[in-house]
Amino acid sequence: MTVPSKSVKWLVCALSLSVPTAYGQHLSLANALGGPYSRLFVSRDLPAPTDAAAFPNRWTMEYGNCEKNAAFPVPKNVPHWIVHGVKWNYAEARSWPLSFTKAFAISVLGPKSAPAVQTQFLGNSVGVSAADGMIYAESDDQFVYALNAETGKLIWRYSPISGLFMGTPLVVGDTLYVSSGSVTFSYGNVMRFKRTGFAPRGASAGYNAIIALDRVDGQVKWIYWTRSEDMPTPAYSRGKLYFDNGNGNFYCLAAKTGKLIWKTHVGGMANMSSPIVYHRLVIAGMGNPGYLYALDRRTGKIVWKTKVPDAFNTGAGDVSPVAYHGIVVQDSITSPKRLNGTMTVQNTVIAYNAQSGAILWMKRMGRGPLPPAFKAGMPMVHDGIVYVGSPVTSVYQAYNVYNGKRLWSWHIPDAGPQGSGRGPATFYRGKLYIATGADVYALNPSIGRIVGAYHVGGRFGIVNPVIVGGTVYLANSWDWISAIPLRSIK
Amino acid sequence: MTVPSKSVKWLVCALSLSVPTAYGQHLSLANALGGPYSRLFVSRDLPAPTDAAAFPNRWTMEYGNCEKNAAFPVPKNVPHWIVHGVKWNYAEARSWPLSFTKAFAISVLGPKSAPAVQTQFLGNSVGVSAADGMIYAESDDQFVYALNAETGKLIWRYSPISGLFMGTPLVVGDTLYVSSGSVTFSYGNVMRFKRTGFAPRGASAGYNAIIALDRVDGQVKWIYWTRSEDMPTPAYSRGKLYFDNGNGNFYCLAAKTGKLIWKTHVGGMANMSSPIVYHRLVIAGMGNPGYLYALDRRTGKIVWKTKVPDAFNTGAGDVSPVAYHGIVVQDSITSPKRLNGTMTVQNTVIAYNAQSGAILWMKRMGRGPLPPAFKAGMPMVHDGIVYVGSPVTSVYQAYNVYNGKRLWSWHIPDAGPQGSGRGPATFYRGKLYIATGADVYALNPSIGRIVGAYHVGGRFGIVNPVIVGGTVYLANSWDWISAIPLRSIK
Repeated sequence: MTVPSKSVKWLVCALSLSVPTAYGQHLSLANALGGPYSRLFVSRDLPAPTDAAAFPNRWTMEYGNCEKNAAFPVPKNVPHWIVHGVKWNYAEARSWPLSFTKAFAISVLGPKSAPAVQTQFLGNSVGVSAADGMIYAESDDQFVYALNAETGKLIWRYSPISGLFMGTPLVVGDTLYVSSGSVTFSYGNVMRFKRTGFAPRGASAGYNAIIALDRVDGQVKWIYWTRSEDMPTPAYSRGKLYFDNGNGNFYCLAAKTGKLIWKTHVGGMANMSSPIVYHRLVIAGMGNPGYLYALDRRTGKIVWKTKVPDAFNTGAGDVSPVAYHGIVVQDSITSPKRLNGTMTVQNTVIAYNAQSGAILWMKRMGRGPLPPAFKAGMPMVHDGIVYVGSPVTSVYQAYNVYNGKRLWSWHIPDAGPQGSGRGPATFYRGKLYIATGADVYALNPSIGRIVGAYHVGGRFGIVNPVIVGGTVYLANSWDWISAIPLRSIK
Repeated sequence: MTVPSKSVKWLVCALSLSVPTAYGQHLSLANALGGPYSRLFVSRDLPAPTDAAAFPNRWTMEYGNCEKNAAFPVPKNVPHWIVHGVKWNYAEARSWPLSFTKAFAISVLGPKSAPAVQTQFLGNSVGVSAADGMIYAESDDQFVYALNAETGKLIWRYSPISGLFMGTPLVVGDTLYVSSGSVTFSYGNVMRFKRTGFAPRGASAGYNAIIALDRVDGQVKWIYWTRSEDMPTPAYSRGKLYFDNGNGNFYCLAAKTGKLIWKTHVGGMANMSSPIVYHRLVIAGMGNPGYLYALDRRTGKIVWKTKVPDAFNTGAGDVSPVAYHGIVVQDSITSPKRLNGTMTVQNTVIAYNAQSGAILWMKRMGRGPLPPAFKAGMPMVHDGIVYVGSPVTSVYQAYNVYNGKRLWSWHIPDAGPQGSGRGPATFYRGKLYIATGADVYALNPSIGRIVGAYHVGGRFGIVNPVIVGGTVYLANSWDWISAIPLRSIK
């Protein structure tokens, strides 16, 4: 080997720093210390213990829980700022000014594609997690961020491997779990898709992995590599991590070590359908073909699978299911029909019996042109009601979870040609909060009428408002993380 | 709009810094100042004027010129270090230690895929450029680098937009031209490929653009956006830039302003076939279907097009042509045949009449399994002889450019399952230098026998040895830029 010159000796030394992998080997990271992707840690901005104690102390699923309702009330005796609410904006690495109403590179990509490309390849796709006084976010700018929830100051940032970070960081104990990967296809796999009708998403198109980091300072604990993409977010339960991927697999890892416990190939392709763990089941959807799957969380055996009727495109693999009182709800793009040369679809909400997978009810949300990128809406269920949006027609609707009766339909204001209404709502103290377009709205949840609004700027992708005490925490496609006092949404 | 908190005011100010675009608009970049992707400029490491003067003062095509022979002898009276040669290694942002013989993530990607994925998604794909005492490189780590050629110290680095930088920076006057983009396909375009047999490469899979930077400090001068990928490298001639792209287009821009002069849709898909400008022609290949095209450089009209016989896969769109004494030479993957369940191919070298496109001769280099990623070898022509490698069989061969007579064939040592021999050779002072695998070899060009070797480490992608005076400059897939004294290759 070449002897490196004096000037790079310290780098080579740092590069050889190794971490244990899932297989007990030691692995270096391709990451120059002191370079732009290296870990930056500012310990002085760690939260005070009293602040940390008032926050949730773990975050085990995308959007917080099986209901996807990320609402965390706090008692009165916590530090004033938590009750009162704080306001800040943090500019991530690829930040695009919040005052800019047009998406990046819109001049060539056009008003329909540019916002979707920005969500997928530049900014934050989904919502943040909040734990122990810190706000965690993954961005498609290739970085993971930890901020002080009160001040919005950076505690650490890190890009452990090259790839998009498209999920919500999970927090359990002293560990943060993130996933990185590519959502695209290599040329070889395009050929394979053409020949066979299937190809693994993200394979030979970059690096794909589940990564465990120290939640306080961002250091890597372990990496579990896969050939296909693992976006967006695993689910944690009782010492185990569950995720599905772009090659039709479900995985169960030991959360402490990253060691594989079981792996089940069910077929199809996961996209943004992050699994939930509900009683003894791990539940998620796959597209191509469109099925909802429930696996035994201990053995990985399929307990039931239900074909999503008339599912189209990535449909059933796009949306994470929610579960409530023995009922699982997911929606999917269905029923393609070409009208006057334009491909149109329905977004269909389906409720399943959680034990058997039998379809309980099914409601179509309205026909419209096929939206770009993430094509449906992430449901949220609270107090017997499912709230779900559809970018096909840019509406938000409420359904009785038991019988599918539609309670109201709300037309989202200022929805662009890319469609609005992808992110889950949050129910908090009698109001329904929805982040869509460039705004956060407060609705009367009984009738679906606006009772408050706040203009953040940028564009919300598949983002939920995360509410802790008096503050809403959000991340957006313009690559910003924001805190908004609840009282400002008026 | 939300009023940003105190702590981010300086960032918002910096973000609004705008540059004129190709259309005379002003455009901000999605890039937080002070963040990891921001421009870093170290003026104290700029080269001395006497050093700069001994170097080439421009770099107008990928691999340096129409012959792809990047050899620059210097007179005796230049600074000693230029004649004597220097040695350094510069660790780029995603550096993987040069002492590591196994590619990054090989445990999951395997020995055939892992090196190719590292070339395409992590390190440097092609060779560097050398001008005015500086070494310029583009990396798939999303950065462009300018180093001091004597010391290997960073003068500037910058990631102006999110994307892979897969080419060689061009240098003309005070401007550096680079291209950024995605080599992969979105799901929507996979569906389109399946339905129609064609889809634009890189579209809706990230950002794609030609970017002009200040060569001294890296500041952006203009950006020309396209929907599909523009990799790897444009060609400069007489105030104009030429490039082809993943949507079957050729473009001509005004180099000073980035304004479009002409655009011609020829069909097919460019991959790594960077155009050359040869007399009045712009020449490059497209895959799907495989054609070599020659366009009038002033009008963009097709002067001739020749079907590449039996071209397979990305074949004819992978390789940049070379031109010499009225003859154009390109090679391509051809003649697919499935043998015992394995897809096998030929790499075929073809010589064309530059004026008419008529095929003059055609030679097959040997049958072997289809290699991953870039599938053929970049030819170089010097003094009537074409030198070209083939990763199909991991050989390097020499042909008489006039009649196609094979002069010798050399089996590349230590070729892995991914195949070796993709980069162009460099002819300098009676020896032939080839960067392949982890090594730089010196060959006797008359008989194809090794006369010297130097182990750099890592893996060379489609990289040529760039020789200025007594130093060879290289970049590799492990994300390093290296300088090696010629006298060490022994």
